[in-house]
Amino acid sequence: MPLFFKISLFFFYFFFVISSSPLEYNHPLESLALFELTQVTNIVKNSYFPLNVTFHYVGLNEPNKQLVLSWLSSTHHPALPREAIVITRIDQKTHEIIVDLSSVSILSDKIYNGHGYPMLTLQEQTAADELPLSYPPFISSIKKRRLKLKEVVCQGFAVGWYGEKRKSTNRMVKVMCYYLDGTVNLYMRPIEGITITVLLDQMTIASYIDRLIVPVPKANGTDYMGSKRRRSSHESNSIKIVQPDGPSFTLDNGNTVWWGDWKFHVAYDMRAGMIISLASIFDAEKEEFRSVMYRGFVSEVFVPYIDLTEEWYYRTYFDAGEYGFGLCAVELEASKDCPENAKFIDGYFISQDGTPGKMPNVICIFERYAGDIMWRHTELAIPGKVIRKVRPEVSLVVRMVSTVGNYDYITDYEFKQSGTIKVTVGLTGLLEVRGSIYTHNDQIKEEVYGTLIAENTLGAYHDHFFTYHLDLDIDGHENSFVKNNLKTRRVVNKSSPRKSYWAVVSETAETESDARIQLGSSRGALEMVVVNPNKKTEVGNEIGYCLIPGGSATNPLLSDDDYPQIRGGFTKYNVWVTPYNKSEKWAGGLYTDQSHGDDTLAMWSLRDREIKNKDIVLWYTFGVHHVPKQEDFPIMPTLSTGFELKPTNFFQHNPVL
Amino acid sequence: MPLFFKISLFFFYFFFVISSSPLEYNHPLESLALFELTQVTNIVKNSYFPLNVTFHYVGLNEPNKQLVLSWLSSTHHPALPREAIVITRIDQKTHEIIVDLSSVSILSDKIYNGHGYPMLTLQEQTAADELPLSYPPFISSIKKRRLKLKEVVCQGFAVGWYGEKRKSTNRMVKVMCYYLDGTVNLYMRPIEGITITVLLDQMTIASYIDRLIVPVPKANGTDYMGSKRRRSSHESNSIKIVQPDGPSFTLDNGNTVWWGDWKFHVAYDMRAGMIISLASIFDAEKEEFRSVMYRGFVSEVFVPYIDLTEEWYYRTYFDAGEYGFGLCAVELEASKDCPENAKFIDGYFISQDGTPGKMPNVICIFERYAGDIMWRHTELAIPGKVIRKVRPEVSLVVRMVSTVGNYDYITDYEFKQSGTIKVTVGLTGLLEVRGSIYTHNDQIKEEVYGTLIAENTLGAYHDHFFTYHLDLDIDGHENSFVKNNLKTRRVVNKSSPRKSYWAVVSETAETESDARIQLGSSRGALEMVVVNPNKKTEVGNEIGYCLIPGGSATNPLLSDDDYPQIRGGFTKYNVWVTPYNKSEKWAGGLYTDQSHGDDTLAMWSLRDREIKNKDIVLWYTFGVHHVPKQEDFPIMPTLSTGFELKPTNFFQHNPVL
Repeated sequence: MPLFFKISLFFFYFFFVISSSPLEYNHPLESLALFELTQVTNIVKNSYFPLNVTFHYVGLNEPNKQLVLSWLSSTHHPALPREAIVITRIDQKTHEIIVDLSSVSILSDKIYNGHGYPMLTLQEQTAADELPLSYPPFISSIKKRRLKLKEVVCQGFAVGWYGEKRKSTNRMVKVMCYYLDGTVNLYMRPIEGITITVLLDQMTIASYIDRLIVPVPKANGTDYMGSKRRRSSHESNSIKIVQPDGPSFTLDNGNTVWWGDWKFHVAYDMRAGMIISLASIFDAEKEEFRSVMYRGFVSEVFVPYIDLTEEWYYRTYFDAGEYGFGLCAVELEASKDCPENAKFIDGYFISQDGTPGKMPNVICIFERYAGDIMWRHTELAIPGKVIRKVRPEVSLVVRMVSTVGNYDYITDYEFKQSGTIKVTVGLTGLLEVRGSIYTHNDQIKEEVYGTLIAENTLGAYHDHFFTYHLDLDIDGHENSFVKNNLKTRRVVNKSSPRKSYWAVVSETAETESDARIQLGSSRGALEMVVVNPNKKTEVGNEIGYCLIPGGSATNPLLSDDDYPQIRGGFTKYNVWVTPYNKSEKWAGGLYTDQSHGDDTLAMWSLRDREIKNKDIVLWYTFGVHHVPKQEDFPIMPTLSTGFELKPTNFFQHNPVL
Repeated sequence: MPLFFKISLFFFYFFFVISSSPLEYNHPLESLALFELTQVTNIVKNSYFPLNVTFHYVGLNEPNKQLVLSWLSSTHHPALPREAIVITRIDQKTHEIIVDLSSVSILSDKIYNGHGYPMLTLQEQTAADELPLSYPPFISSIKKRRLKLKEVVCQGFAVGWYGEKRKSTNRMVKVMCYYLDGTVNLYMRPIEGITITVLLDQMTIASYIDRLIVPVPKANGTDYMGSKRRRSSHESNSIKIVQPDGPSFTLDNGNTVWWGDWKFHVAYDMRAGMIISLASIFDAEKEEFRSVMYRGFVSEVFVPYIDLTEEWYYRTYFDAGEYGFGLCAVELEASKDCPENAKFIDGYFISQDGTPGKMPNVICIFERYAGDIMWRHTELAIPGKVIRKVRPEVSLVVRMVSTVGNYDYITDYEFKQSGTIKVTVGLTGLLEVRGSIYTHNDQIKEEVYGTLIAENTLGAYHDHFFTYHLDLDIDGHENSFVKNNLKTRRVVNKSSPRKSYWAVVSETAETESDARIQLGSSRGALEMVVVNPNKKTEVGNEIGYCLIPGGSATNPLLSDDDYPQIRGGFTKYNVWVTPYNKSEKWAGGLYTDQSHGDDTLAMWSLRDREIKNKDIVLWYTFGVHHVPKQEDFPIMPTLSTGFELKPTNFFQHNPVL
């Protein structure tokens, strides 16, 4: 490091120690605080001064798992190293920098030369979106279409990869433009036929094609802001959740949540969004917290569109790796996005230039009381007695909403008193539609890759695959993955009046290949359990948690050799299990934008590592094939899907008595 | 009819006209009122006087669909015939009697000579349960086990059919006994080894076998009534739903519910339980109610246990057909079974001797506000604007709980403003466990057909299959069933940089065999839609409702040739479609107890009738294979599963703007 950098770092350090009052962080997995983010980006910027540094990602480089676990089990909670991982572009190169906050120094700085690029920044997307508006060929395209330029809004999209050999400097987006003029629902008014390619590092339009003119769908009927009251709707009386004594959970200043028997940590990350860490549940009999999940987060959201037309074929998004599931998180509205009894957490992100920004109310936490029943029984069999005991269900929800352009993803973790963690993703927001010449189905004779959901409006077919990284630590760190197959057996020797029955045939996965599961015909007849093979219940059952798929454990429909599917290879199986490896976080690879699929979960898993009685990570992918319907226009009713993690002989008995 | 019967009927009629003040019923599908039930059973009893008549079922013989529909569409709502269907045993024969309430006469009276018997009555079950307690061999068995007779409680179970050729008079149950002595949770304390067969018509013990002595599991830890507060649990603050201006729905005195755009009728039936009829939704643009479902109800609940041991092999219950899903419905507790804002409906059933009984608060209706989001979007793409619009989800739930012995089934219909009907079944209550010599898994070397969930307690493997009868009338009565297959296609001629895509290949079922679907590998890549082929949206899409399976569309694991599976043949496919036929209501046959499987949905469907553009009925079966866990002991946390019926191009656009 040149001397003058060292000096400036020195001054910087003093500046910081004097001027900022760092909050004492009390959790080693707590997201970087505002002052830490500033510190990190200053260190990097100073180190490269006077070069221009663009920041694509800054997040906590979490301490080694072993350190965190000993921190957790110690009574005095020793301070752990605070490090940041920074992904930048400097001089058209991708840098992966580790910054140590206690020594205020750069620990490592690697240039990444492989395929793929870092997450897009909000600023470069905005800049790219504005380019066409002053680009004469575009202006003339707009004129030719008799549209008003001031009503045009553009949006850049990741371009994917289709086998091209590109130079590493070719970071680009394709910009698609939309028309307002009477609506705020721009996505329902695409200006089709134009392909604008923008080089991001250079921030220039690299290619411009105006191929054909297609009618822009009309504004009428697209607006979702209006409150046209419909004659038929009875005025709904107000309905509220009230907790006169306030919520029952505690949220400490390090974002650890205590609720009922549960304890867990909530963090915000620019890429993953919400991260749940160190979820554990108090066992009253053992008088201790027992671990369930070390970390759980959205690793990737793969959204391939199915439209093969020139302006659409490339649209195969990786919403976490390309846009940042956390970066796209939005402020939650009290009493609307979350009920009246919710508490909110802020998040902090880094702008392209290194300035930290606050995301107010980006996560909410609330107790959910939906009128459900936790357990009940009415007993009428005892003569002279009527026994009834009912426990209403109250659970705790942690929510983030990520709006990646048109789509709004509602991501919930619901903690139940029974020990279950229910994960739900709700899909709402706006469809990505293609403008079309057609106003009626009868006119359509070609393949249009979508549903005509309004005049001139094709709701494009697409898929959503949500891949969760679930580092389960079931009552300890060494776990195994067990498949309990329910198998039909024939009765032999007429030993019973029956002819058949079923048995549970258990199989413990030895290596990664044993744990790849495509859910399909075996559904319902397969239990998937992460167990701790080193502990048993008193009657000798393996202590575990079961993965219970929700309604839509969808498998890919694209061919294995298709480029988007190579990049999204991790969706091939619904379940994968890998040995814990701190670097294996992002199922689509660390550098997903324009990736070639050489750093995905599917590739890591080829090593077929041992996973029996190891610290293992469960990856679960579910999703929907979305054939749009007219009801999805102009804004989609929420479609929910997800999965559950359910205690399976984890407790000696029902923990909520 | 002998003269003296006619005379007594005449007097009876006068008696009734004078003494009772019949409520003017205003809905042709309204359950029989108390006075009507009295009238019906009196007519039957008088007609057979002095013979003893036992009543197994009395319910509304609903008017022909065409009549109901014209009633609905007429403005003056002409009175429709009120008829009852009565199933009785008279002189050891099963009678199927239709009673007309307006003419106070028996319209038809058929003796049923086929296989199977009517539903068991509560009274005969109670009588059978008491027999062992005064039966000397049983008393000596209890003594031999050093148990106290006064702590013994017995329960009769349907015996199934295993190929035997029985006389039609052999109505029987097998009685299983349990031990209280320190707990109310009798089901956790089975007294194993004894098989007691009771002939019901004779109410005598036909056979008694005491085969072996097995330890009775201990009482300690089985009680769910106690409120042992656990040290770790933070005291939960109270949480309530409040509607200061009251609920937004209207429930008229004929049990028609009006809520938002929805209108539907709720009825109680001794066999089906809750029945939803004539569900329709107001279309503000068309200014009319558009039909969605003519009738929806639980047709059968098949619960085969998997245990082959002598005392267990026969346990393959049909909870609706044998015990009556409605007859087993229980009183719902305000603020526990249903939230604070619920309204309740009573039900009326018939005792064995013809006396009507009231089931108070058997159904509840409430608005559900769970903190969910109906739809939302945050729009940041418009320069200088931040647009956010969020609509919280409020839905309407109609609930009944049926406690069939040990199990409690929570059945919900949730009506959403978006037009979706979500059907959920929650399973809770108590497991059926087998007493066992084992106190630890390591001791077990034989097949035990269950999980050791506590000492001496095997939670027996079993399945639950819920079969719903869904007479959908999508915007009219003539409907078709369409399978939309999402099929992978290869890109040809390098017409796109991609190599594959998917297309929607639609197939309309012509006959019943085209519509039998075993959900499995095709999951997620198959849409199942009931459409009205005679109507289209403005842009030309077929108007429809989609069946969306929930998490567990389970298929049977028993062999096709196994007796329980022959009787439960309707579970072989998750989906069946039949042409509407008033007599085809009960998937397991009208006479399910000891049935031979010759009157099931599977048999009716063999006729392979035409179903295209017909009045059709959709049958959907889902379920769970239950491998019990220690957490299910001593009372099970609710396990929920179900399906959705979702508008699919039914509306021109999202109906909730």
